Amino acid sequence: MSPFTFDQLAIAVSAEKIGDTSQTFSGLNHLDQATARQVSFIGSSKYTKNYATTKAGAVVINDSLKHLVKGEIPILVVKNADLAMAKLLSLYERESPVFETAISPLAYIHPTARIGADCKIGPGCYVGAKTLLSDGVTLYPNVTIMDEYQIGTQTIIWSGTVIRERSQIGAFCIFHNNVSIGADGFGYRPAEDGRGLVKIVHIGNVVIGNGVEIGANSCVDRGKFDSTIVGDGCKIDNLVQIAHNCILGKCCIMAGHSGLAGSVTLGDGVIIGGSASIKVHITIHSGAVVAAGSGVMGDVEAGKTVLGYPATESRAKLREWAAVRKLGKS
Amino acid sequence: MSPFTFDQLAIAVSAEKIGDTSQTFSGLNHLDQATARQVSFIGSSKYTKNYATTKAGAVVINDSLKHLVKGEIPILVVKNADLAMAKLLSLYERESPVFETAISPLAYIHPTARIGADCKIGPGCYVGAKTLLSDGVTLYPNVTIMDEYQIGTQTIIWSGTVIRERSQIGAFCIFHNNVSIGADGFGYRPAEDGRGLVKIVHIGNVVIGNGVEIGANSCVDRGKFDSTIVGDGCKIDNLVQIAHNCILGKCCIMAGHSGLAGSVTLGDGVIIGGSASIKVHITIHSGAVVAAGSGVMGDVEAGKTVLGYPATESRAKLREWAAVRKLGKS
Amino acid sequence: MSPFTFDQLAIAVSAEKIGDTSQTFSGLNHLDQATARQVSFIGSSKYTKNYATTKAGAVVINDSLKHLVKGEIPILVVKNADLAMAKLLSLYERESPVFETAISPLAYIHPTARIGADCKIGPGCYVGAKTLLSDGVTLYPNVTIMDEYQIGTQTIIWSGTVIRERSQIGAFCIFHNNVSIGADGFGYRPAEDGRGLVKIVHIGNVVIGNGVEIGANSCVDRGKFDSTIVGDGCKIDNLVQIAHNCILGKCCIMAGHSGLAGSVTLGDGVIIGGSASIKVHITIHSGAVVAAGSGVMGDVEAGKTVLGYPATESRAKLREWAAVRKLGKS
Repeated sequence: MSPFTFDQLAIAVSAEKIGDTSQTFSGLNHLDQATARQVSFIGSSKYTKNYATTKAGAVVINDSLKHLVKGEIPILVVKNADLAMAKLLSLYERESPVFETAISPLAYIHPTARIGADCKIGPGCYVGAKTLLSDGVTLYPNVTIMDEYQIGTQTIIWSGTVIRERSQIGAFCIFHNNVSIGADGFGYRPAEDGRGLVKIVHIGNVVIGNGVEIGANSCVDRGKFDSTIVGDGCKIDNLVQIAHNCILGKCCIMAGHSGLAGSVTLGDGVIIGGSASIKVHITIHSGAVVAAGSGVMGDVEAGKTVLGYPATESRAKLREWAAVRKLGKS
Repeated sequence: MSPFTFDQLAIAVSAEKIGDTSQTFSGLNHLDQATARQVSFIGSSKYTKNYATTKAGAVVINDSLKHLVKGEIPILVVKNADLAMAKLLSLYERESPVFETAISPLAYIHPTARIGADCKIGPGCYVGAKTLLSDGVTLYPNVTIMDEYQIGTQTIIWSGTVIRERSQIGAFCIFHNNVSIGADGFGYRPAEDGRGLVKIVHIGNVVIGNGVEIGANSCVDRGKFDSTIVGDGCKIDNLVQIAHNCILGKCCIMAGHSGLAGSVTLGDGVIIGGSASIKVHITIHSGAVVAAGSGVMGDVEAGKTVLGYPATESRAKLREWAAVRKLGKS
Repeated sequence: MSPFTFDQLAIAVSAEKIGDTSQTFSGLNHLDQATARQVSFIGSSKYTKNYATTKAGAVVINDSLKHLVKGEIPILVVKNADLAMAKLLSLYERESPVFETAISPLAYIHPTARIGADCKIGPGCYVGAKTLLSDGVTLYPNVTIMDEYQIGTQTIIWSGTVIRERSQIGAFCIFHNNVSIGADGFGYRPAEDGRGLVKIVHIGNVVIGNGVEIGANSCVDRGKFDSTIVGDGCKIDNLVQIAHNCILGKCCIMAGHSGLAGSVTLGDGVIIGGSASIKVHITIHSGAVVAAGSGVMGDVEAGKTVLGYPATESRAKLREWAAVRKLGKS
């Protein structure tokens, strides 16, 4: 992580420079914690007053806010300080952990597995029979990949993650630690003799698109006779449950602890808030938002926002909450 | 997975045949996705209209619905198409992932461990001291089993699962990926000097019956001085929490993200819906149902269904919800 | 686990003895389950009636309750039977699982890692480059520790846990199975071409204090440009989510399935109940309690208890619940 000059930072985020400095910058930080060798950010009028007191060596600020700050600290004026911060974070990204040898002799790789160019496989990994790893795939230590799997180019799989047999994963995906992909769907039927439950075999698989990110300790179960599908560009947080036969469109977001019961369908660009859960067979249409904590028991129209348990249209739910609050006081 | 003839399928599900075909069938699928070499299903009058347009090579249908469909596609008439589907799924089940060698030389097996006949142990597994694996147990790669454990015959443990010392697991169980069994219960007491918290040691264990299935990334903690018990035939979904000293009767079902706080007791055949949580020391009596998303703060009588947060008898809760909805509009 | 005499037990918990016995005691148990060689406990007047029927060989009882029981079974009178039980549990604690060799030849340890005295590292562990393990650290089998990590003295890490690069863990911590520390925070921004989402790189780390316990399958994500911080003495249960840039003070408790969204701040001694979730950027001040199942959408003052979804001051919420219950019946 080498330091960057004021000019280099300005070029990286296409900023107008106000003031100048020969200082080099080694990182980023909050206004109240930054040091002279760090850059900070003002993306809202709430923070312009902190410009006077910050110890940061430079500040990135929204064009619309620059007239609100006056002082000595050099400024980089951009359209959107949040986006600029995201870009500078990439600039300061540290090198990923490296292995002594690209393909560890302490990994088990089945003789029938095909491993593309420039793959990295850490110690303790298991790569099953008839698996195909495309070029540039990285498996960090102690990843387990069962048989007949395909993984697209440049996908990164962090330690502890387990991928069960016969599924397909796209390119440029990131799976974080201890993810479970392709476990059996949760389905039983009463035994015919009335004694106990009989497991319904799940012979389907999981199909994951390109550019999908799946958070630590999250689960995607296999389909009953077809596929559980996670569309291109979906971003899944930690501890999320995606049950058998769910179908997620493109670029959906699911926040931490949220869950989809079996056969839920999400359109494109759906956002599911943290700890929200969706009942079996529900469809959430494109662009809809399920607020954090909601319990959804019916289909949600495209573009609508629902809230609460039971979830209803969000403004209606806010009115209900207000009415109940009033009732509690009467 | 070899294809089956129309006659073979009819025999497998004890079906009456209407029409005939020399076609062989390679799998199952939904009515709107099935191809000529796949079988599909009509188990509800909602789907009888799809018979006219499906491309399936054969359709399994409930006896009570057969008069509602007319056409060319051969039919297998059964009492219950859902049960028939479960049976056909077993027929089409794929072979499990296989190892090059039954007991991998890349597994660590403590010299004092006893391994039954026909066990399979994958690379990267750890089998601790004085462990007993009965005949036919399968440990997929990277399973960790600490000391003094017993595992019953034919139990299957998928990769990433960790089982802590001194507990007992029955026969014919399935543990999916990244399950944690036997971690310390969560208990602390204030330090006597008033500074911080002191850990309460949990010297108990976990006892799991026969035919239990535990989903990916779920947890069962050990008891304080005795056992946390999961009864025969219980089916636990993904990301479920079962805290120290819980006792589950036979054939309970817990859906994804549900959780039991410490010392909760479930009778036989209790069903806990997804994301529901149960407070400490509560008893849910046999045959009771806790609906998805509920938060249960009191005992539940046998056979009752509770709903909501705070959970109450389900019809009462539905009336409350209706009243609040009305209030929000007034 | 050797048996202890009545006298030894009395000394261990500073008890007054009533009655005497030459019996030795091999463990602890509930009043209704204890045998003649086990000790049991009466810490509440609810249980004094069970003294007459218990088969326990001795009973530990609160001083304030001793006048309520009459009979033959020897008694150990203490101020607080619950605390005494916690102490006796420590007495009866079993030895931890042991390895054949302290540092397993089946572990991978990077040549640049520094390993303190008396460390134990099990088979299948991965210890990355430039890692520092202080004296007495135990890594159970199949733990993965990426590069540039520091772990304090006597910390114990159970199997399946993964710790990502460049973070710091204190002394005397316990991490249970399948924990994920330091995965990327969950942050995206819309792509400038309006097509999809762009990952915000998280270059920060995780800093965990001394004496912290983290439950099985829980997650702590790394910060965006600084640290996610878990203060000294915090106790985190199973399946808990702590998102990027959260800051936990000292001795906080988070019960199973609870979750903090990004940039949540907890003061000292905050208690978060099971399945509760806290919205982004919220502050819960010192000594506050969030009841189980709550969804918190605003800051909570020091020492206050909040309840419900949306969470409000707990007595206000109980009044709301009572009013709704009444409304449902009218």
